[in-house]
Amino acid sequence: MNTHLDIATYMQNLGQAARAASRQMAKASTAAKNAALLAMAADIRARRDELLAANAEDVAEARANGLEAAMLDRLTLTAKGVEAMAQGLEQVATLPDPIGEITDMKFRPTGIQVGRMRVPLGVVGIIYEARPNVTADAAALCLKSGNAAILRGGKEAIRCNQAIAASVRTGLAAAGLPETAVQVIETTDRAAVGHLVAMPEYVDVIVPRGGKGLIERISKEAKVPVIKHLDGNCHVYIDASADAAKALKILENAKTQRLGTCNTAESLLIARPVAVSLAPTLCAMLTAKGVEIRGCAETQALVPQAKAATEEDYYTEYLAAIISCKVVADVDEAIAHINQYSSAHTETIVTEDYTRAMRFLREVDSSSVMVNASTRFADGFEYGLGAEIGISTDKFHARGPVGLEGLTSQKWIVFGNGEVRA
Amino acid sequence: MNTHLDIATYMQNLGQAARAASRQMAKASTAAKNAALLAMAADIRARRDELLAANAEDVAEARANGLEAAMLDRLTLTAKGVEAMAQGLEQVATLPDPIGEITDMKFRPTGIQVGRMRVPLGVVGIIYEARPNVTADAAALCLKSGNAAILRGGKEAIRCNQAIAASVRTGLAAAGLPETAVQVIETTDRAAVGHLVAMPEYVDVIVPRGGKGLIERISKEAKVPVIKHLDGNCHVYIDASADAAKALKILENAKTQRLGTCNTAESLLIARPVAVSLAPTLCAMLTAKGVEIRGCAETQALVPQAKAATEEDYYTEYLAAIISCKVVADVDEAIAHINQYSSAHTETIVTEDYTRAMRFLREVDSSSVMVNASTRFADGFEYGLGAEIGISTDKFHARGPVGLEGLTSQKWIVFGNGEVRA
Repeated sequence: MNTHLDIATYMQNLGQAARAASRQMAKASTAAKNAALLAMAADIRARRDELLAANAEDVAEARANGLEAAMLDRLTLTAKGVEAMAQGLEQVATLPDPIGEITDMKFRPTGIQVGRMRVPLGVVGIIYEARPNVTADAAALCLKSGNAAILRGGKEAIRCNQAIAASVRTGLAAAGLPETAVQVIETTDRAAVGHLVAMPEYVDVIVPRGGKGLIERISKEAKVPVIKHLDGNCHVYIDASADAAKALKILENAKTQRLGTCNTAESLLIARPVAVSLAPTLCAMLTAKGVEIRGCAETQALVPQAKAATEEDYYTEYLAAIISCKVVADVDEAIAHINQYSSAHTETIVTEDYTRAMRFLREVDSSSVMVNASTRFADGFEYGLGAEIGISTDKFHARGPVGLEGLTSQKWIVFGNGEVRA
Repeated sequence: MNTHLDIATYMQNLGQAARAASRQMAKASTAAKNAALLAMAADIRARRDELLAANAEDVAEARANGLEAAMLDRLTLTAKGVEAMAQGLEQVATLPDPIGEITDMKFRPTGIQVGRMRVPLGVVGIIYEARPNVTADAAALCLKSGNAAILRGGKEAIRCNQAIAASVRTGLAAAGLPETAVQVIETTDRAAVGHLVAMPEYVDVIVPRGGKGLIERISKEAKVPVIKHLDGNCHVYIDASADAAKALKILENAKTQRLGTCNTAESLLIARPVAVSLAPTLCAMLTAKGVEIRGCAETQALVPQAKAATEEDYYTEYLAAIISCKVVADVDEAIAHINQYSSAHTETIVTEDYTRAMRFLREVDSSSVMVNASTRFADGFEYGLGAEIGISTDKFHARGPVGLEGLTSQKWIVFGNGEVRA
């Protein structure tokens, strides 16, 4: 960064360059975009030692500054991590190009043929924590979807992110694409984020990835649309017609496979008719796995080890070995409970009953709704998107895991032969 | 309106009721929604004289207050207008129900089947000027798309809007749907708008319809997404390979069929190789139709009656018998000019050249891009959407004419058989 520029001017320049690059990217050929991704991967592999050295400096400084262990872990890049990054870029190159796709072309009675063409959003701003791999992933998804990107990673990862940025530029240049199509902010000044989210003339959408605090702050300040989720308070509902074996297997996976992910179950609902027969077994499994149970009075009566749940518990995403539990009358109460307490991320019903499965699917107002499957599947890779830029719990534009398509829009196109309106 | 309530409390109550009603509307059957639309139409016909009387009072007051003629014209409802309103409701009943549509269900290697289900956005706030027919149209589109709506019409139409609102409630009640699914704000206090656009807990999206000033103010104040267009600065580009007869016909229709609509052409670009042969004829036609031409120096050299265009002219949506005109070198300059000066509404190229047609289609960054057709076709009815709630020149969520689909989102759904994530 040119240190004699003030931060506002620096960000304006970045924005202008991104807007100009976005025009080039919008018309870039699939071949050029894929060539850039492959060249980036090659350059990242070639400069592996440089990346690791930059990362080692980042990690040393972060450790000296007392960064907590979990964050240090995410910051640290290994040789395997560099290879995974390169493979990620290559994998995005194999995904179909969404841009230019023409659909729904239909003749109208007037003689014109009307349909839609998929187009990029324009410029995407991505704000994330100190995870160097996100720099490569996000750059790849924005590039493939024909967007320009401005990336702002956690300050702890600044050296490594700049090294990755150099490889990204090399790849873009090798493919004849503008190097400014992906810009990584070079300053750790927090004011840069404030500018990034408030330049509607240069930035079309912001994707924040990280803790709830960061995302809430960004959403509040943003003058452009934000693709985001705040919480993953996911529910497993065991219906009166649940298959007991499936219930056990799904609950175990949804709650205990990984405790800290946004698609991990945080709340268990059990239909009253099967509470007596299933709650003790299900909760014994959780207890054996070290999960603390916080339940309603009925749960506590059936499960001696359960503590009492407060109202607040039902709203909570623990990201820890804790689960809230409630006995509900039926699928109606389950749906009402979820629509009130859930963060609209992912919910699943375990049932063999067709009508209740269909009602749950239709009436639960969350971004992913499942029948007889683990909430842990709510993920761009698992859904077949190839990769994801994030997950949205909003309804405007994208909902659920957001892949390449979520970074695009559709314009209307008309083929005519001299037609005019009557 | 309960006059002892302050406006903030009144709007909060409206919002709460709308949010509650939106849950019912999201699961309402197609039959119930259609029944409500037909009952509304019947009630509007039955109460025609009442509506006309209420409108007459509105018109008398507006005239006494000196409302300008064009606005008085839009405010005035005739017996024919009432019938058109009823038919509009019936026509929305015939449109396919977008809600619950399941698409793209594909099996994944894990055994789960993943796809998407179309869902309503939730609560839609619509702010419009004194055009009573919008009350019925907007209510119908929100209802059919499973949303709840809060409508705020121009203060001059308050009596007529309340009369229409009564018919809407009658229709909802007749179909067993909550009457609060469509609420028309009962106060003319402008503060109501400020509250409506800043209640993200109750309102999911705002659709403002009206003048640019209104829409700019709302977009600035809004704390929720806004579906909007500010301007329709639409371009007709006459390419070097244009068919002269199509060029004349399309330009005439695009500019002169109606002067005051957002899809009317406001700017004419002519490729230099055909400027000498076509500019005089095209401009003579415009002049004969009473259209003032403001051109670049080259235009002026070819078209004696042309005045000089300023830089500002090329940015201007005249909504009047004026057109800006510029001679450009080729399709590259035309695309660059449009992407700089256009409001991203609608542009058309007149050409017989395949490659340039395809380039224009792909590279022009507007919500509707046409080949050899009049810009006047950019309209929800003409595109086959059945009806439109508005036109969006943004890229996030909806782009171009917005019909029922633009008032919906898609959630992910997963069918499993006990699958868990490895």
